[in-house]
Amino acid sequence: MNDLLFEPKDNLIDQSLSSRSAETPTNGDGFGVGWYGTWKYPGLFRSIRPAWNDFNLRDLAVNIESSLFLAHVRATSLATVQETNCHPFRYKNWLFVHNGEIFEVEKFRRELLMAVDPKYFENILGSTDSELMFHLALTFGLEQNPIDAMAKMVGFVERIGKKNNVPESVWMTIGLSDGITLWGFRYASDGNAPTLFHSRTKDELIKINPSLQDRYSDHAKVLVSEPIGKFKEMWEEVPQGSSLVIQNGNISIKPFKPVSP
Amino acid sequence: MNDLLFEPKDNLIDQSLSSRSAETPTNGDGFGVGWYGTWKYPGLFRSIRPAWNDFNLRDLAVNIESSLFLAHVRATSLATVQETNCHPFRYKNWLFVHNGEIFEVEKFRRELLMAVDPKYFENILGSTDSELMFHLALTFGLEQNPIDAMAKMVGFVERIGKKNNVPESVWMTIGLSDGITLWGFRYASDGNAPTLFHSRTKDELIKINPSLQDRYSDHAKVLVSEPIGKFKEMWEEVPQGSSLVIQNGNISIKPFKPVSP
Amino acid sequence: MNDLLFEPKDNLIDQSLSSRSAETPTNGDGFGVGWYGTWKYPGLFRSIRPAWNDFNLRDLAVNIESSLFLAHVRATSLATVQETNCHPFRYKNWLFVHNGEIFEVEKFRRELLMAVDPKYFENILGSTDSELMFHLALTFGLEQNPIDAMAKMVGFVERIGKKNNVPESVWMTIGLSDGITLWGFRYASDGNAPTLFHSRTKDELIKINPSLQDRYSDHAKVLVSEPIGKFKEMWEEVPQGSSLVIQNGNISIKPFKPVSP
Amino acid sequence: MNDLLFEPKDNLIDQSLSSRSAETPTNGDGFGVGWYGTWKYPGLFRSIRPAWNDFNLRDLAVNIESSLFLAHVRATSLATVQETNCHPFRYKNWLFVHNGEIFEVEKFRRELLMAVDPKYFENILGSTDSELMFHLALTFGLEQNPIDAMAKMVGFVERIGKKNNVPESVWMTIGLSDGITLWGFRYASDGNAPTLFHSRTKDELIKINPSLQDRYSDHAKVLVSEPIGKFKEMWEEVPQGSSLVIQNGNISIKPFKPVSP
Repeated sequence: MNDLLFEPKDNLIDQSLSSRSAETPTNGDGFGVGWYGTWKYPGLFRSIRPAWNDFNLRDLAVNIESSLFLAHVRATSLATVQETNCHPFRYKNWLFVHNGEIFEVEKFRRELLMAVDPKYFENILGSTDSELMFHLALTFGLEQNPIDAMAKMVGFVERIGKKNNVPESVWMTIGLSDGITLWGFRYASDGNAPTLFHSRTKDELIKINPSLQDRYSDHAKVLVSEPIGKFKEMWEEVPQGSSLVIQNGNISIKPFKPVSP
Repeated sequence: MNDLLFEPKDNLIDQSLSSRSAETPTNGDGFGVGWYGTWKYPGLFRSIRPAWNDFNLRDLAVNIESSLFLAHVRATSLATVQETNCHPFRYKNWLFVHNGEIFEVEKFRRELLMAVDPKYFENILGSTDSELMFHLALTFGLEQNPIDAMAKMVGFVERIGKKNNVPESVWMTIGLSDGITLWGFRYASDGNAPTLFHSRTKDELIKINPSLQDRYSDHAKVLVSEPIGKFKEMWEEVPQGSSLVIQNGNISIKPFKPVSP
Repeated sequence: MNDLLFEPKDNLIDQSLSSRSAETPTNGDGFGVGWYGTWKYPGLFRSIRPAWNDFNLRDLAVNIESSLFLAHVRATSLATVQETNCHPFRYKNWLFVHNGEIFEVEKFRRELLMAVDPKYFENILGSTDSELMFHLALTFGLEQNPIDAMAKMVGFVERIGKKNNVPESVWMTIGLSDGITLWGFRYASDGNAPTLFHSRTKDELIKINPSLQDRYSDHAKVLVSEPIGKFKEMWEEVPQGSSLVIQNGNISIKPFKPVSP
Repeated sequence: MNDLLFEPKDNLIDQSLSSRSAETPTNGDGFGVGWYGTWKYPGLFRSIRPAWNDFNLRDLAVNIESSLFLAHVRATSLATVQETNCHPFRYKNWLFVHNGEIFEVEKFRRELLMAVDPKYFENILGSTDSELMFHLALTFGLEQNPIDAMAKMVGFVERIGKKNNVPESVWMTIGLSDGITLWGFRYASDGNAPTLFHSRTKDELIKINPSLQDRYSDHAKVLVSEPIGKFKEMWEEVPQGSSLVIQNGNISIKPFKPVSP
């Protein structure tokens, strides 16, 4: 994981120190990495320290090899800084990361929480809107049909938001995986979601970091909230209101529309 | 606070290292201190570190003077070790500490949580059964009538527990204060609650720690889950199934019976 | 302490998130507060968390009243993020905070450490150049004559630096107190030390934060590395190569010149 | 690593909660794991939390596979609880763990530190006697001849101890590896070192944890400070004053005698 987390210019660690396009100047409120490895479930390493000063992260990054992983640096708006509030969130073989927020969620968090299926309820360990979005999506069938469940989740949050006088409540980019497929979502109720980019060819990824020549498979793809590495033109921006599926190295992007469940 | 936290033999810090009568051998899963001082609300200092190795605690203990404070060392059964799960819990001028647990709470935690009044819901920051008990008691009128509200809270938890096939769900000693009065509760559904002791006279407290002669008021009283200091005979055990009120140095103990709300 | 740490615009906490003039964009590598209170020694509260997300700090700030305190937010260049590396450093009644660094100290840290008087050696708990500067100054007589000892400390570090091919090794602003007097130092071997500002009159301090009208004594003075509050013109910059003494509300500034001991 | 750290009865995690034979009742002052994996140097994961409540450790234990690793739970006598004081300590391909202490080291820690070769000095990141013993052994040639260097290190510490009126200063069991060979040492100046045990055959290791049948190589050996698992008779105690070498599954034990360097 080291090759992507630490080595390129503008890597995730540098981004945690100074974010170019995010609302808050710093992503220093904890971080997390989830990876698919030798265990039946993905591994999680989450910490409340800023990613840039955590020595354990550096050692794990060079020691853990994984063909699929999700990493996240956090800037909290509201919820407490504690490991259970750090992304990724995990349910069985699923991992979930989120940039953004549900606006004024304190007005209707309880109502959203009540809607979570009791089957998934005890898997909620923290207090973030992000973990809640994940468990609502699980409630709406994420394990069977992720894109459909995400559309219902967003539709539901927007509906409950409106009921509580928050007309445009959702602001998100999301990364999601079951260990085989990687999904991405970029959506905001007001049309201005945070950015999301994907890499294109293996050759371009190698240009970003030539030392990786022998380590990328032909299917290698990277999904990021901001371009990493020096060649900005190699990253393709995912349009507002889109879902994205990466499978076997193929990327498919479609319009994403909330559905009221 | 130093005089009680660090100086007597078998003080709270030593208890965190090796608990004589508790179920678990060590109370190393975080600690907390809440004190009434110069602010309109009580101050809180909570940490996930074991109390015995936290340097900040030692400095705060010698520097903070308070005529009323609650301290707690934690041994978790289930819930994550994070600051928001450390006692005391606070709501406005109220502080709450709990020893014990709700048995098999994972079977009906969601149902208990749903019963919390929306007015108090956003004050729940962690995931413990203890914080939940506090907010249920608030829902049942703690701010108006603490003993009555606690009786309803216990009655409610026992009822929901039974519905979920947990016939004897509550196991607790509790300390509670509004900044003026200190309440204690010792109760278990099966009649075997953790221990609770109170001090008697100022003179006896001074024998435990003679250096405090000039610092205790005539009303000084201490409530502990296990005797501190070397004179065990000076501590009076609170009977099973009791509530206790300490006000102006007077202690009043009455039977405590759950009430189904 | 709350009035200065949290309430003014551009307060210390905001500065920890985004520093205007510092070399690094963020001071998120821990923080510390040392205050003179009821104990014979100053109290210390230090944490490796970013100041902006530490809940304990907020509670302590509103609960601790002190007529003299030093606060610091850290951006580490080299040394590990751990509590023992957070400022202030303490020796008996003395507190010491430092902005800046000894350049390439790794080339001669051992030589500097060897020069610390065995009497002070065991008080070194961490691994920073800052703590080392403090203990070298103690070695050169800080307890008797602070300004003279600091001049010898800087002269010594510069001499050992030169010996190790680091021609301009010292870069510092320093705050120092014995509980009665507050000293400040601004000096760099190359003439470009970090900034240092002092407040002027009590009336101006009150304009910065009117709610403090009744709480400042007539002698109130504040020393900061960057202006806090909205009225920048009220802060007086301390010139390069100066020492500053604040006593009984009087400020005296003199040129500061290293002396080879 | 999970199979040894978490699964057997009396595993390392349980030992951190309640140590049977150690001087202190609890090993809750941090922990660490070092493992030889895919990187040129061993990986390190160290934390100040008690091992029993660290969720990251559980995930790493199931996700990291290693044919050689060292794990340690800490109970500090003196030195601060911080990551840099947690074992194992690392230098290039070497890992070092220590149970025990140098008695009254505060009387001569400075003198020992001065004796560390400048070449190794900047690798000292913490403040423990353990890390100091490791770097003294490096100074005396650990990389070339570990047993000889350890004998010189102990002889040196004892000599400096005596000079400072500490007649019997060393109390230790030590684990050491270069990634290929595993060394163990059990020695105390007064003849009463902490315990050290080694496993015997692969068949016995499998009896302790049958699920590991297919995962142990024929050369599998385990070295522990206290027996883990239920079959105490399967563990062979290493005699007082011994060094032990495990290589290719062969164990060789010889008397260990300090040598004054």
